[in-house]
Amino acid sequence: MIKVGIIGATGYAGQSLFYLLHIHSKACIEFITSHNYADMDYSDVYKNYKGFISDVCIKEDDVKYKINSVDVIFTALPHGKSFDIVKFALEKNVKVIDIGSDFRIKDVLTYEKWYKVKHEAQKYLNEAIYGLPEINREKIKSSRIVANPGCYPTSCLLALMPALKEDLIDKTSIIIDSKSGVSGAGRAANIGTLFCECSESIKAYGVCEHRHIPEIEQELSNISGEEINIIFTPHLVPMIRGILSVCYLRLKKDIDEEMIYKIYKSYYSNEPFVRVVPYLPETRYVKGSNICDISLRVDKRTGSLIIISAIDNLIKGAAGQAVQNMNLMFGIDEASGLKFPSMIP
Amino acid sequence: MIKVGIIGATGYAGQSLFYLLHIHSKACIEFITSHNYADMDYSDVYKNYKGFISDVCIKEDDVKYKINSVDVIFTALPHGKSFDIVKFALEKNVKVIDIGSDFRIKDVLTYEKWYKVKHEAQKYLNEAIYGLPEINREKIKSSRIVANPGCYPTSCLLALMPALKEDLIDKTSIIIDSKSGVSGAGRAANIGTLFCECSESIKAYGVCEHRHIPEIEQELSNISGEEINIIFTPHLVPMIRGILSVCYLRLKKDIDEEMIYKIYKSYYSNEPFVRVVPYLPETRYVKGSNICDISLRVDKRTGSLIIISAIDNLIKGAAGQAVQNMNLMFGIDEASGLKFPSMIP
Amino acid sequence: MIKVGIIGATGYAGQSLFYLLHIHSKACIEFITSHNYADMDYSDVYKNYKGFISDVCIKEDDVKYKINSVDVIFTALPHGKSFDIVKFALEKNVKVIDIGSDFRIKDVLTYEKWYKVKHEAQKYLNEAIYGLPEINREKIKSSRIVANPGCYPTSCLLALMPALKEDLIDKTSIIIDSKSGVSGAGRAANIGTLFCECSESIKAYGVCEHRHIPEIEQELSNISGEEINIIFTPHLVPMIRGILSVCYLRLKKDIDEEMIYKIYKSYYSNEPFVRVVPYLPETRYVKGSNICDISLRVDKRTGSLIIISAIDNLIKGAAGQAVQNMNLMFGIDEASGLKFPSMIP
Amino acid sequence: MIKVGIIGATGYAGQSLFYLLHIHSKACIEFITSHNYADMDYSDVYKNYKGFISDVCIKEDDVKYKINSVDVIFTALPHGKSFDIVKFALEKNVKVIDIGSDFRIKDVLTYEKWYKVKHEAQKYLNEAIYGLPEINREKIKSSRIVANPGCYPTSCLLALMPALKEDLIDKTSIIIDSKSGVSGAGRAANIGTLFCECSESIKAYGVCEHRHIPEIEQELSNISGEEINIIFTPHLVPMIRGILSVCYLRLKKDIDEEMIYKIYKSYYSNEPFVRVVPYLPETRYVKGSNICDISLRVDKRTGSLIIISAIDNLIKGAAGQAVQNMNLMFGIDEASGLKFPSMIP
Repeated sequence: MIKVGIIGATGYAGQSLFYLLHIHSKACIEFITSHNYADMDYSDVYKNYKGFISDVCIKEDDVKYKINSVDVIFTALPHGKSFDIVKFALEKNVKVIDIGSDFRIKDVLTYEKWYKVKHEAQKYLNEAIYGLPEINREKIKSSRIVANPGCYPTSCLLALMPALKEDLIDKTSIIIDSKSGVSGAGRAANIGTLFCECSESIKAYGVCEHRHIPEIEQELSNISGEEINIIFTPHLVPMIRGILSVCYLRLKKDIDEEMIYKIYKSYYSNEPFVRVVPYLPETRYVKGSNICDISLRVDKRTGSLIIISAIDNLIKGAAGQAVQNMNLMFGIDEASGLKFPSMIP
Repeated sequence: MIKVGIIGATGYAGQSLFYLLHIHSKACIEFITSHNYADMDYSDVYKNYKGFISDVCIKEDDVKYKINSVDVIFTALPHGKSFDIVKFALEKNVKVIDIGSDFRIKDVLTYEKWYKVKHEAQKYLNEAIYGLPEINREKIKSSRIVANPGCYPTSCLLALMPALKEDLIDKTSIIIDSKSGVSGAGRAANIGTLFCECSESIKAYGVCEHRHIPEIEQELSNISGEEINIIFTPHLVPMIRGILSVCYLRLKKDIDEEMIYKIYKSYYSNEPFVRVVPYLPETRYVKGSNICDISLRVDKRTGSLIIISAIDNLIKGAAGQAVQNMNLMFGIDEASGLKFPSMIP
Repeated sequence: MIKVGIIGATGYAGQSLFYLLHIHSKACIEFITSHNYADMDYSDVYKNYKGFISDVCIKEDDVKYKINSVDVIFTALPHGKSFDIVKFALEKNVKVIDIGSDFRIKDVLTYEKWYKVKHEAQKYLNEAIYGLPEINREKIKSSRIVANPGCYPTSCLLALMPALKEDLIDKTSIIIDSKSGVSGAGRAANIGTLFCECSESIKAYGVCEHRHIPEIEQELSNISGEEINIIFTPHLVPMIRGILSVCYLRLKKDIDEEMIYKIYKSYYSNEPFVRVVPYLPETRYVKGSNICDISLRVDKRTGSLIIISAIDNLIKGAAGQAVQNMNLMFGIDEASGLKFPSMIP
Repeated sequence: MIKVGIIGATGYAGQSLFYLLHIHSKACIEFITSHNYADMDYSDVYKNYKGFISDVCIKEDDVKYKINSVDVIFTALPHGKSFDIVKFALEKNVKVIDIGSDFRIKDVLTYEKWYKVKHEAQKYLNEAIYGLPEINREKIKSSRIVANPGCYPTSCLLALMPALKEDLIDKTSIIIDSKSGVSGAGRAANIGTLFCECSESIKAYGVCEHRHIPEIEQELSNISGEEINIIFTPHLVPMIRGILSVCYLRLKKDIDEEMIYKIYKSYYSNEPFVRVVPYLPETRYVKGSNICDISLRVDKRTGSLIIISAIDNLIKGAAGQAVQNMNLMFGIDEASGLKFPSMIP
């Protein structure tokens, strides 16, 4: 059994992690921490677990007494809050999977510019592997620290990677229009995410300013070997879970839809969690699962390629991918604990 | 033109009041106050008004400089917060319509027991007319201060009043099961009313403990001349607006559905905002309007009467009824500014 | 492995069954039928299964060629449609779990009065065990045919059973106010269940006329040994899944809340899927799981007991309970394939 | 008073028209038709009108007896269904505002290719003015027949028109990503628009195939004087009303955001229903109103202009714009009957 600790278990991402690790047959949760709910029964915070568990949230300060009991910690904290605990864990030879955003951006200045905090664990930045298994599987297997990708970046990178690698598209014309459910905004008590402010409405937000932009650009640049700038527009949709990303691209070559489908199917043929599908994705078909659905359309009139991807922002976009990374890091079946489809309706 | 001030214009009830007074052809808004948004353009808080208005929120402290400009103030404040402003206005010969709950309960001890604050304007308690026009129309016309009914009480009292007055039902067996949209919980930033905590779920809350219980009981007792205790269960429903109340009653007499319909239709035949309807009400048919729909069913097997009513909690349950009261207090057409049906879908 | 066939796999209940049997480690699906989607890949109807399965829907007429391959069939058909297939299966020594409503009502006249069709498999009516394990566990274990309870009845009977058995309540005063998500209305293309007709609204329907009334009354009468008539009001709530039932009861004895809690906890202490909880249930805490949450409140002022229960209408209210019954009928762990909490948010 | 008839009053667009004309002080409804609800009281179909109106739906065949009673008819019919009634009305000197799509596309072959029906009123095609007042105000004033724009085209054309006219953007790079509420799909009983199929999900549909593409392209080409091809992706969002369109454009010139704002504000300075706003639009701020909100962002890194617009698909996107056109055609205040903001929350 892989013994795990969850740092920040009461946010939505942390809770999703708890869920997946709870049902995982090869992992067991040794401790969980919570800033706002320390000393409370976890099943009093999330009453769905009543009768299933008896975990109590501990303070982050008390992790030091527990760190020796675990093989890996998951950190699910606001940006800028994970430096100390990550350093501490690594020094104690405990592996780290950071679901937060502190180890994703490799360039310190870029990180500090977009996140407005000083990076205080720079020495681990390069060691931290960007945890998208479809790109970095082998590196993840041997890493001590994984930077779990953001939700939007996961949906965008899986959509774009084969097209970029095959040099199908004009790299200066990448436009991504993404739509997210409200859980992406977290569980903080803000007026903007109240039911009465979100329901029956849609809005774009953070146009050209969202913190996932440098993350997406970094990875796209790594894939293509050139510096890439994108246009990225996130939206808030009146649903709890799900991200749908639509990528608009200019084709470099005269290549038809069927051929691009072949390329995508080939790239993802061995991937346990990517489905290249002929129909247009809907987030409900991946909700609650670790699946990413990808579909392609070529518009001949404009010479454009449109790629659409759908994920569950809390699963493939956060906790599910983190578990997938854990499975890789500990040498067990990569899909362990994640082999279930979306439950609908 | 009736000149009005709104104290507490940025909560949902206050905003609904602003909306209705804005489109009212015989009222004009002279000032509005806000605790959290003082000095801000109202159309920066509620951007739907952009281009329509130029009102700026003032501090409640500055009402003293403006009080002479108005004929009436509406107070839409949390309980326990309206005493000073109400006393001040009345002393300045400005009428008051209190949308809050501070002047509804006539018995001070009952008020203080349920609301946990000391009542500091007791001398106006008796003068304050309970503002349900269908009961107190004539008193409202000549009053200086009106206590606007709560949202649940409005839906319940309109449903029960004729049955009680006609002595059709066992007064010891009144059970009310009410369902409300989330806007009833207000615009405060609480985790409990976040989209992700309310959507795709229903719950009962405050069973036998809700503050609207003494208000409903007081008015039912006044109607019947006997002290009445009720069972009342409110629910939170994943919709923004609307209250549906289902009243379960034991019939005293062997009386059929048709006859009770006759009684109800007769009671409400001249009411501009009560519809006694043969079909089962749905909140969408009253959403955004000042209408209360009422339907009746007799279950012969159990000798029971079931009365179902639907209102918009923010209109007939708050701001619309307040405008109706204003119209009465100033001797203009009672339905002025309120003569529109629900906009659907 | 238990080999199963699903008759009517493309309705919401049938699909939920498919989901649960797909992830069940001790059952395998041998065939599925569909009236509207015969010959189609199941994963083209429900695209969440893409990549997980390769099942093709067959015609019900073709079950005859497959019946020998299975140990049990689940029938999830509209009322009046299951008689032939049930008779055929039983004659072939294949067990039957009927998720529909054709074998629940033991009195033929009552069935025919409420359902408006002739019952054409009367000889199996008495043999069919009403499949609420919390009442009939032992009988289910040895039965060939189980009539799986309706969704509303499941939520009501679990709430009321201990109070009735202990003779705590006045049997002439049972009132049940239930609220259901829209999936309870099925997947037929009706205007009434369109998004634009259901969202942002709540309504009661079928007041005192719903077909689950005779089912609830039959079982309550069996429990208490007296004929019981209830008042039952179902509601349509703008959410996909979940039922919340609130039962209003008159206490016979002067008994306090704590004592009733003790009784309930004792009754359900060994039940794998019933949680007696101190807080008020919310459907989100049971959504997607086979759990039923039950809470109690005594209102001393009126001598009343209020019992609130929450289930997922498609799981404990349909497919989950059916799997629980299958587990019992085949002598395996009753909770097999059902041991997971609700996934939230 | 302008006397009007509504052909097809029971779809969502027709109903919205009924609502707006009902509250319009200078129009009165003389007759309404319905295919599915002929001879029914309109308030039995849409119960929100109970007590407000007594209109009865007539058959379309009976319009011939009523045509002389009206000055104008609104046709709100499926495509291909309005030819006969439009010809008949015009011959009787009754004006026509077609909310459907039969008179928008000027090129018959294009119409027939995209709509798959033969156009049977070609002689009126050229006469029919495309009813976007912000473009064709003067022509509308003197027209007998107006082709009311589609919902998506309205949101897109208002967003793009000034940029095109000022030649700010590369005309080969227009990408529009639009999101619509479910009411855009109409009131037909389809599985795809059931609550349980739409709620908690988002999807793109009709990518590069939607029938509004030739309409948008025709008008953009007219504005720019060049043939324009666009990429257009519509989405279905789990809300009832609203369209948010995000346009991605390549800037031709080095021009900053402030300057483009100036241009847009200047273009729309006299428009009663277009607001050029600094913040990002949300559909709730225009819901139920005839307003179109437009916002601009320049992304200097990529030399791109992003324009975002929000409308209510049933008001500015259909019925409200139709009323605006009627006002123009009859020489009354253009904003008559439409001067109200969105009601929120």
